Amino acid sequence: MIVTLTTDFGPSEYVAAMKGVLLSINPDLTIVDVRHDVTPGNVAEGAFALFSASRSFPPAIHVGVVDPGVGTARRGLVVVCEGAMFVGPDNGILMPAAKRKGVLGVRELTNPAFWRQPVHPTFHGRDVFASVAAHLTTGAKVGDLGPLIRDPVDLDFGTPEEAKDGFRADVIYVDRFGNAVTNVPAHQAEHRWSYGTTVRLVIGMREYALSFLRSYGMATRGSLLLTIGSHGFLEIAANGASAAHLAGLKPWDRVALRES
Amino acid sequence: MIVTLTTDFGPSEYVAAMKGVLLSINPDLTIVDVRHDVTPGNVAEGAFALFSASRSFPPAIHVGVVDPGVGTARRGLVVVCEGAMFVGPDNGILMPAAKRKGVLGVRELTNPAFWRQPVHPTFHGRDVFASVAAHLTTGAKVGDLGPLIRDPVDLDFGTPEEAKDGFRADVIYVDRFGNAVTNVPAHQAEHRWSYGTTVRLVIGMREYALSFLRSYGMATRGSLLLTIGSHGFLEIAANGASAAHLAGLKPWDRVALRES
Amino acid sequence: MIVTLTTDFGPSEYVAAMKGVLLSINPDLTIVDVRHDVTPGNVAEGAFALFSASRSFPPAIHVGVVDPGVGTARRGLVVVCEGAMFVGPDNGILMPAAKRKGVLGVRELTNPAFWRQPVHPTFHGRDVFASVAAHLTTGAKVGDLGPLIRDPVDLDFGTPEEAKDGFRADVIYVDRFGNAVTNVPAHQAEHRWSYGTTVRLVIGMREYALSFLRSYGMATRGSLLLTIGSHGFLEIAANGASAAHLAGLKPWDRVALRES
Repeated sequence: MIVTLTTDFGPSEYVAAMKGVLLSINPDLTIVDVRHDVTPGNVAEGAFALFSASRSFPPAIHVGVVDPGVGTARRGLVVVCEGAMFVGPDNGILMPAAKRKGVLGVRELTNPAFWRQPVHPTFHGRDVFASVAAHLTTGAKVGDLGPLIRDPVDLDFGTPEEAKDGFRADVIYVDRFGNAVTNVPAHQAEHRWSYGTTVRLVIGMREYALSFLRSYGMATRGSLLLTIGSHGFLEIAANGASAAHLAGLKPWDRVALRES
Repeated sequence: MIVTLTTDFGPSEYVAAMKGVLLSINPDLTIVDVRHDVTPGNVAEGAFALFSASRSFPPAIHVGVVDPGVGTARRGLVVVCEGAMFVGPDNGILMPAAKRKGVLGVRELTNPAFWRQPVHPTFHGRDVFASVAAHLTTGAKVGDLGPLIRDPVDLDFGTPEEAKDGFRADVIYVDRFGNAVTNVPAHQAEHRWSYGTTVRLVIGMREYALSFLRSYGMATRGSLLLTIGSHGFLEIAANGASAAHLAGLKPWDRVALRES
Repeated sequence: MIVTLTTDFGPSEYVAAMKGVLLSINPDLTIVDVRHDVTPGNVAEGAFALFSASRSFPPAIHVGVVDPGVGTARRGLVVVCEGAMFVGPDNGILMPAAKRKGVLGVRELTNPAFWRQPVHPTFHGRDVFASVAAHLTTGAKVGDLGPLIRDPVDLDFGTPEEAKDGFRADVIYVDRFGNAVTNVPAHQAEHRWSYGTTVRLVIGMREYALSFLRSYGMATRGSLLLTIGSHGFLEIAANGASAAHLAGLKPWDRVALRES
């Protein structure tokens, strides 16, 4: 059975402690790190990592812990989906990934029998979420973890505004290469533009002309382009360079994309 | 069987080479990374990572390699404990973790039959320590690795000075969130203060008033607090912010904590 | 079966997506990360990581993805060697490691039956290379992946110039400790100098006198030395300090090493 981990703990002994607890309960687990370098406390960034990576997995339990509210009254959740379960705090981190898989039910984690005792108030990642995930792989019934709830904290990546001549969209992620992922879904972009179309990218007062292309290497080296990224969204990229650097983009910037 | 790795090698091919050797000897191992971003050569920082993480593991062999003396006369060790063995150089890195588990015996690694040959003089992590750890998981007898010794290099995190009105303590670790872990054990802090108490933190000429709380989220957002961290020590933290940044703290700073 | 991964993806969800695909096809795989922090697009740096790490592994499939040409006409390859297969783009990243193992045959990946569909044009790491590697562990015949080719893009780390009084060599890698690995193979250096010899290191106008020693700790603390690194090449190092910093060295610098 596979358990994935997405946190803001950095490459630290906190992640190892979660793995120790997982393996204490189920020594046969396959544990996969998604990201641990999420900006501390940035729930949306963690949600996007979980959303992106979970799509490529076979049936698995995905633990997401970006948890600035740890030790307060915020709830812990298990979200049961088709072919996946998501475990983590009730702050939205699990929801984009879970909604894409198809949510079958959301339960609050209230049964301490599945937690590592004593639960440390600043480390539910280890003592609640890792422990619950491991128990789910060794036969724990999800119904025993806690009651169904109907009001989990929701989170999404926003919806681009469609206009006659294009989109107003948000940058939801900038990857290591400087590719800026927008919240325009692939099908909306492909519906509007055919490959080869030139599109104007407007960021505040700055404006750039970009071709909509199938891959990075089809643009002139060093120049900006638009493409459908592997996340399934329209992406502002550059061939052999950082689009974020060239166009001065960062997460949550608003951009306009207009036909020329 | 689980082998954990704690090094100062960074996210590098050196760690992968150790894993290659481990899997060459025992292809069924579960290998867990604790930390590889220990500051190069910082033995105490490696010791603290090993000390913190090893507590959450089921029976395992923990390899710790922060080894500025590699290739000199410094000894290699296996430390046998209740439910754990620790393998690494004799410079103290293994001892805090081993002492907490309960040391049953310390042996010097002198038998080259358990090493990868030829042993490279700058990479005992791969050729001695990983090799020995893997052999221990496939039936090697610890007594065959080398003789018992009684004088391993010791290392601890210091002892806070207790005064009438509080502690003088050292910061032994600053984590990714900026939480500054002191060397005041949980039970000493909880014995002295009840939750809700206000404590003065004095760093050189600077002074701050902090509440002793059960978790980060119980303080005003952005403000400093004291709590018992998941490492089991008194921690100077901040809610949604970096305590190290707010109070100008770094590892091995000395601080005073006084009742108001 | 072991699959290793070497990429320039950073500690990102892209690596996790590759692992998801690998485990979807073969849930019993042992996956080992070599490096993911290769400088974006730096094929030679990726090649060196793969070359260094693959030497320590038992039979394994090594996936190397530093792939600035993804989605263009560049070919994908599987290189079959003694005890290893290498999978990745045809840009040289696989060749130094493969040549050291002994190349038995190189095939172009042309059979989409072994790819994850639909193949995303910017992410062959996930949809082609990870998928092919996993299929190779579950009985896919290498001959079914595509035709033999005779002209893979080659790459090596250069050859040092031998002179009467020493070498002119290139720095091919600087590790986390600041050790600067040159392209002088161990046997050439050891043939020319005995341990204890003093050698002059000349970098442009700067000149240093270094001893050729068996390990770092044999030099005076803080001073430069020459040693045979664990990569199997002559290395410019320093005891307890960064040679790269002390001597102002970076990858691909040219240096002269002369007998005093």
